[in-house]
Amino acid sequence: MKAKIHVTLKSGVLDPQGKAVEQALGSLGFAGVSGVRQGKYIELDLDETDRAKAQANVEKMCEKLLANTVIENYSIDFAET
Amino acid sequence: MKAKIHVTLKSGVLDPQGKAVEQALGSLGFAGVSGVRQGKYIELDLDETDRAKAQANVEKMCEKLLANTVIENYSIDFAET
Repeated sequence: MKAKIHVTLKSGVLDPQGKAVEQALGSLGFAGVSGVRQGKYIELDLDETDRAKAQANVEKMCEKLLANTVIENYSIDFAET
Repeated sequence: MKAKIHVTLKSGVLDPQGKAVEQALGSLGFAGVSGVRQGKYIELDLDETDRAKAQANVEKMCEKLLANTVIENYSIDFAET
């Protein structure tokens, strides 16, 4: 089973990386772009075949390693492989 | 209009960041995890309201700045805000 994890900064948390991208896009001539936020996208393969167990497992991974839950949110999707 | 962009390493390109995450998960006791790949996830707001023009515009942004198309793929989704 393949898990797809998005880790994004909570709204209100300053995103200097996003700001830098926004300014770079502006200076490349792309107008009308705002609110750029950059996050992480992680894909992983799980041996676990039970969906509920996989969900619980990946949530633990996010809490312990993949996301800093003080400033980041995470969301998890699954795809059958 | 909100654009959601995924930038992922092409398959076959070594992903040391993903490997590091995989090893860290292993040493935290998560078994059965493999094929960890880490990419970028970018959200941005566009003033453009025409879907086709927005798509063309964001593709240009990806080619020019957001993705290194030699080693990375990108995919673009749109959401109405």
